[in-house]
Amino acid sequence: MSLANGRPYLAIPGPSVMPDRVLAAMHRAAPNIYEGELPDMMPALWADLKDLAGTTGSVAAYIGNGHAVWEAANANMFSRGDKALVLAVGQFGRSWAQSALQMGIEVEMIDFGKSTPVDMARVTATLRADTAGKIKAVLMTQVDTASSIRTDIAALRAAIDAAGHPALLAVDCIASLGCDEYRMDAWGVDVTVAASQKGLMTPPGMGFVWFSDKARAATKTSDLRTPYWNWTPRADAAEFWQLWGGTGPTHHLFGLREALTMIKQEGLENVWARHDCLARAVWAAFDAWSAGNPEIGLNVANPADRARAVTAARFGAPHATRLREWCEHKAGVTLGIGLGMAEASDPAYHGFLRVAHMGHVNAHMTLGALAVMEAAMIALDIPHGSGGLAAAATVVAKGA
Amino acid sequence: MSLANGRPYLAIPGPSVMPDRVLAAMHRAAPNIYEGELPDMMPALWADLKDLAGTTGSVAAYIGNGHAVWEAANANMFSRGDKALVLAVGQFGRSWAQSALQMGIEVEMIDFGKSTPVDMARVTATLRADTAGKIKAVLMTQVDTASSIRTDIAALRAAIDAAGHPALLAVDCIASLGCDEYRMDAWGVDVTVAASQKGLMTPPGMGFVWFSDKARAATKTSDLRTPYWNWTPRADAAEFWQLWGGTGPTHHLFGLREALTMIKQEGLENVWARHDCLARAVWAAFDAWSAGNPEIGLNVANPADRARAVTAARFGAPHATRLREWCEHKAGVTLGIGLGMAEASDPAYHGFLRVAHMGHVNAHMTLGALAVMEAAMIALDIPHGSGGLAAAATVVAKGA
Amino acid sequence: MSLANGRPYLAIPGPSVMPDRVLAAMHRAAPNIYEGELPDMMPALWADLKDLAGTTGSVAAYIGNGHAVWEAANANMFSRGDKALVLAVGQFGRSWAQSALQMGIEVEMIDFGKSTPVDMARVTATLRADTAGKIKAVLMTQVDTASSIRTDIAALRAAIDAAGHPALLAVDCIASLGCDEYRMDAWGVDVTVAASQKGLMTPPGMGFVWFSDKARAATKTSDLRTPYWNWTPRADAAEFWQLWGGTGPTHHLFGLREALTMIKQEGLENVWARHDCLARAVWAAFDAWSAGNPEIGLNVANPADRARAVTAARFGAPHATRLREWCEHKAGVTLGIGLGMAEASDPAYHGFLRVAHMGHVNAHMTLGALAVMEAAMIALDIPHGSGGLAAAATVVAKGA
Amino acid sequence: MSLANGRPYLAIPGPSVMPDRVLAAMHRAAPNIYEGELPDMMPALWADLKDLAGTTGSVAAYIGNGHAVWEAANANMFSRGDKALVLAVGQFGRSWAQSALQMGIEVEMIDFGKSTPVDMARVTATLRADTAGKIKAVLMTQVDTASSIRTDIAALRAAIDAAGHPALLAVDCIASLGCDEYRMDAWGVDVTVAASQKGLMTPPGMGFVWFSDKARAATKTSDLRTPYWNWTPRADAAEFWQLWGGTGPTHHLFGLREALTMIKQEGLENVWARHDCLARAVWAAFDAWSAGNPEIGLNVANPADRARAVTAARFGAPHATRLREWCEHKAGVTLGIGLGMAEASDPAYHGFLRVAHMGHVNAHMTLGALAVMEAAMIALDIPHGSGGLAAAATVVAKGA
Repeated sequence: MSLANGRPYLAIPGPSVMPDRVLAAMHRAAPNIYEGELPDMMPALWADLKDLAGTTGSVAAYIGNGHAVWEAANANMFSRGDKALVLAVGQFGRSWAQSALQMGIEVEMIDFGKSTPVDMARVTATLRADTAGKIKAVLMTQVDTASSIRTDIAALRAAIDAAGHPALLAVDCIASLGCDEYRMDAWGVDVTVAASQKGLMTPPGMGFVWFSDKARAATKTSDLRTPYWNWTPRADAAEFWQLWGGTGPTHHLFGLREALTMIKQEGLENVWARHDCLARAVWAAFDAWSAGNPEIGLNVANPADRARAVTAARFGAPHATRLREWCEHKAGVTLGIGLGMAEASDPAYHGFLRVAHMGHVNAHMTLGALAVMEAAMIALDIPHGSGGLAAAATVVAKGA
Repeated sequence: MSLANGRPYLAIPGPSVMPDRVLAAMHRAAPNIYEGELPDMMPALWADLKDLAGTTGSVAAYIGNGHAVWEAANANMFSRGDKALVLAVGQFGRSWAQSALQMGIEVEMIDFGKSTPVDMARVTATLRADTAGKIKAVLMTQVDTASSIRTDIAALRAAIDAAGHPALLAVDCIASLGCDEYRMDAWGVDVTVAASQKGLMTPPGMGFVWFSDKARAATKTSDLRTPYWNWTPRADAAEFWQLWGGTGPTHHLFGLREALTMIKQEGLENVWARHDCLARAVWAAFDAWSAGNPEIGLNVANPADRARAVTAARFGAPHATRLREWCEHKAGVTLGIGLGMAEASDPAYHGFLRVAHMGHVNAHMTLGALAVMEAAMIALDIPHGSGGLAAAATVVAKGA
Repeated sequence: MSLANGRPYLAIPGPSVMPDRVLAAMHRAAPNIYEGELPDMMPALWADLKDLAGTTGSVAAYIGNGHAVWEAANANMFSRGDKALVLAVGQFGRSWAQSALQMGIEVEMIDFGKSTPVDMARVTATLRADTAGKIKAVLMTQVDTASSIRTDIAALRAAIDAAGHPALLAVDCIASLGCDEYRMDAWGVDVTVAASQKGLMTPPGMGFVWFSDKARAATKTSDLRTPYWNWTPRADAAEFWQLWGGTGPTHHLFGLREALTMIKQEGLENVWARHDCLARAVWAAFDAWSAGNPEIGLNVANPADRARAVTAARFGAPHATRLREWCEHKAGVTLGIGLGMAEASDPAYHGFLRVAHMGHVNAHMTLGALAVMEAAMIALDIPHGSGGLAAAATVVAKGA
Repeated sequence: MSLANGRPYLAIPGPSVMPDRVLAAMHRAAPNIYEGELPDMMPALWADLKDLAGTTGSVAAYIGNGHAVWEAANANMFSRGDKALVLAVGQFGRSWAQSALQMGIEVEMIDFGKSTPVDMARVTATLRADTAGKIKAVLMTQVDTASSIRTDIAALRAAIDAAGHPALLAVDCIASLGCDEYRMDAWGVDVTVAASQKGLMTPPGMGFVWFSDKARAATKTSDLRTPYWNWTPRADAAEFWQLWGGTGPTHHLFGLREALTMIKQEGLENVWARHDCLARAVWAAFDAWSAGNPEIGLNVANPADRARAVTAARFGAPHATRLREWCEHKAGVTLGIGLGMAEASDPAYHGFLRVAHMGHVNAHMTLGALAVMEAAMIALDIPHGSGGLAAAATVVAKGA
């Protein structure tokens, strides 16, 4: 017998749950792209996109996914032979480095493993060592979707400044924008990349690159630009089609408009606070479950280093896989698989999973997911500490 | 700050959560009503409706709500001056009695209050006392949506038979069909009424009356029939429009088709078992919460008398209202208000609420609702016993 | 080969084409019915419904279809044995008479056939002859959907007044409201009935009865009322549920709200003018087609007597049926079948069809339907006059 | 007064009319991207995509638009300094050339103007003159969306072969795939590009590049490839995410699946025949309108050189603009603006427009658009010949 028949909850770290309002906004006839509602709504939409990232700089949009905006950022920032310093705290930092490398950019990567945050002193030291000034930009994830490590971006800026190095700071906010606090201008970020399908609550298909005036100036002669990736004509577009370097993603735009309106209606700081509280509820449950059960545990030790959008955790192979399958088939909750950090002892990732709490997510959804996970542990005889659900409910009670 | 922004969960006892598949099926251009897909799909739809009620008898459908099918059943079963025996265990039994009374039917109502099931012996005695045979039919709710009392319909049939009385047995399954086990023919029911918006997971707007051959024969000369309520031309329709006594509810029908397909895909007995398990999870939470806290408690003492679709509970005025409001505005769960059984000490119903677990509902939704309720009790300092969520999760773990 | 694959156009006289905005408004999660958006929007919705009918009187809404509101109007206006004068100019007048008759109302029907408007002098004479004042109400269609005859309601009121008879005037606007000009109060109408699925552009499932203070007063003691049909508690409802005598049609209401907003945005007089012009375009095409081809022709000779919502026409059996089938299967246009007025020479109605131009219909849709009909006549070798499409385009050119 | 309120018809050459089935398929919760329905449906979807293009080769898909797949094709085919021969018969050929040029490819463009098809002899001569074999590929539009010129691709292949030149043949089918007959393998095409929003009836957001084994082999060492554009890992993907070089366009894929199913259900040859017949209906109307009115006329003289998906036409400035505005605001039809071929005498393109008949389009839609155009000419006193609508209806009658 299954108790899964009802509204399923997709708790993977992207695509996230699409709000009914967003899906409804996308369900419409194809619009005129030359005049009328769609072109007319773009200026306000672009203003809202900049507010979301906390910048008064520029934004270029792409029909593309996260990998597309990595490549877009790379193509605009670098010329062939320029050097990127990549700080990896999980799978996605390493992937961005790969993207740069394959484009002909020289890459220096510091890989901090899968559970350890960036060592800021080492960043400063590395930049200081670059006396030739070959490093054009530092590439960093705010949240690595695989490890769920969150990086202190303001601290990273300070570490770069401490070295007196002119490198641009480029931040991947794909998994964090609209979830974790982010202030592009205030934190001194030069380039930010994000995509539609996580905190922006819109189906996969659009990516965005925000860039500062400093980045615009510093990259004027970059030679990796192609017509599709070139951010200037998109950011400075006079016509609707130029925003997209061709036909725009008509239906996605109506979805994004609705999603940004929802964020504005709630208030961006309230959105961050909601994610923060739900993340802490998840952590509280894990703290209780792991008490006396070392096989269970959060991937990131220090709360300050943890994402508010997604939580990676260990369950002891093969328990993570068994638990995920039970939750999906018996109770209607799909959790995220482990990604990118398999160990020799668990090559197929049966001891690792991820719980998303990203975007359109409320106390009911998150507490329900935790309750289903506890039911799974009971059903599957996975040893775990007691009191996890009450602890999570208490966090919610105090935070709401 | 609110943690409600995400997918809201409407946990009121109807309208219930509409499945995405049902809403999608209704989102379509108006169809041709004279030929094609819509008329063609009716025979299988009617067969499925009969299977759902467990009958090989007839079914008449109405554009209408629950009150409409009460009136339809009354208009077909009774002539002016006939007598109905109504057994009330909550608000809805009393309302059906009112409907009959206002139509010119003589009504004898036995009101068992708001927390007590039917006393079968008293039914038998009442029928035995009707030596003149004035009672044409016994009207009963399988589940009273207000009190959440479930009646043992097979036992009621036995009680009628014990009296040797020929009265028809008419059962209101509005809140129970597709949730609680129901077997119209096996249990000797003559007339069943239900509506679309609860276990049938389709928006309000359609009602159904199933009737046995015995009911058809016994009511041939009933004089309360009008063209709209007359069940015969609808049940025996040759043309699509006759099924509806005029224009049919085109879009609802595509929704209902999808809902019945979902029930068939899951299996009706599995649907019942799912509701049974989720109901028991709710009860388990309440058992823990009420331990040592007599203000909290289920409305129905005996599990055998409890609905599997909805649970009515006390929280001590004004805690129920405060809790409902917190759950809705802080956490995204809308619980049902108390209905129809206010007491002198709580005229505005601030000490009573209802949790629905009806239709398109899975472990995630129900456990999440319970966790949110516990968070509310913590946030509002409503004294309650501990361990409710773990107890509910355990029921789910064992049942799934 | 077929040229039908594309957006089909359903040009039957109800259900009409549902606007995308209406369907989108209905595609939503079930709402709370006790408080919030849905109950809150009812006062403005009811005000708009009254504006639509041109009355400051009362409106009662029903989950039901056109047949339901006939019965509702009958149940409120009449007591058993009261007499109705029904003026039939097509199928639907006769059906309303049947409804009254089966409810125990005495019916005097004057049947003017299928192509002839009401003879007002005969109405006056009939009422004058009712010296006993037995006739409680005159029942009339503004537009008979089958014959497409439109009745001059103001003239009918004058004819009743000329007789000095106190009878109520009840008008069926099911096929005309929101299409043909209608002014309930100005024209002295006491009771108006309509349903959602034609000019109101919302799926079948709701009906409405508007009634004047005079009708309210004159019917206080009518004994055919039942709880479901009684218009008073619905019109005077204090709570949301009372508007519907039980659970309201949640999703339909959001659809209706959108439809009435569309009508307001266009302006009701503009809506009427649009229908008037499109109807004249259809007539112009038929005038050209029928020139020299007497088998082709409009059912109603005098333009003043023609509906602006639907046009009934002859094509000479079996041409109407062949033409309808070609249009649907080859070109994507579904025309209406003939209804209710078959002749001995054509029992299966192969010489009659109806073209709807009702509700959400623009010049493109109507001109396209006419062009497809002409293509069908060419393909099927149905003799017809030339210049029909140019004539229709000219009407549109002058009217737009 | 306006006659536009009804279902608008967007007759611009892309985005085309999205079928209700496609929009409905996209209106769904975010799916799991790691397993289940979405990954499972990809093999059959890819097979259908290849059938659509008429190839047994490979297909790589991109989140992107038409400009994206131009760049993708360029990046895979060329190394820096390679030469492309571009044959331009309108705006889009010139744009593809620009894309190549800006990527560092040497471009030789033969521009045939805006109304003249490719001179095949000149192609052969040009290739013969390339004795150094610098030309790596010939780039050609099957249909130029701006001029509506259709190129005979088989003849172009023959022209290349006649020169004995090994150049790859790359064809832009963005405006023609799923509309005009196309047979990639049979016609000897090496690379085909298309996008979702025209004949594929799916919102903008996806593009496709099909490539032959010959193209795969010939481009192994191309050095313009980047991780995003590289077609090999996409075409040879083992995992769902590799198909998209990252997160896939979840909702678009369900839409595309439905669109391809619709094409299969109709039969691709029937789809081509439908477009051919509707195009001829449009031409017939123009032939009549232009008789004696030289200001009106089709852009392409020879029917063999005309697209079946879109028709470009002159109306004499400023008539085209006035006509377009009247059709949109008065009658509900949005026609396409002129693009990319303005003349000195008409810099703002007031004498040129385009009528799309592309994708989800039937006889009703096209004939209705023509009838609306004729109404506009009458209303605006634009001189035109008579009989256009009857002529178009006759083409439909004979073709259907």
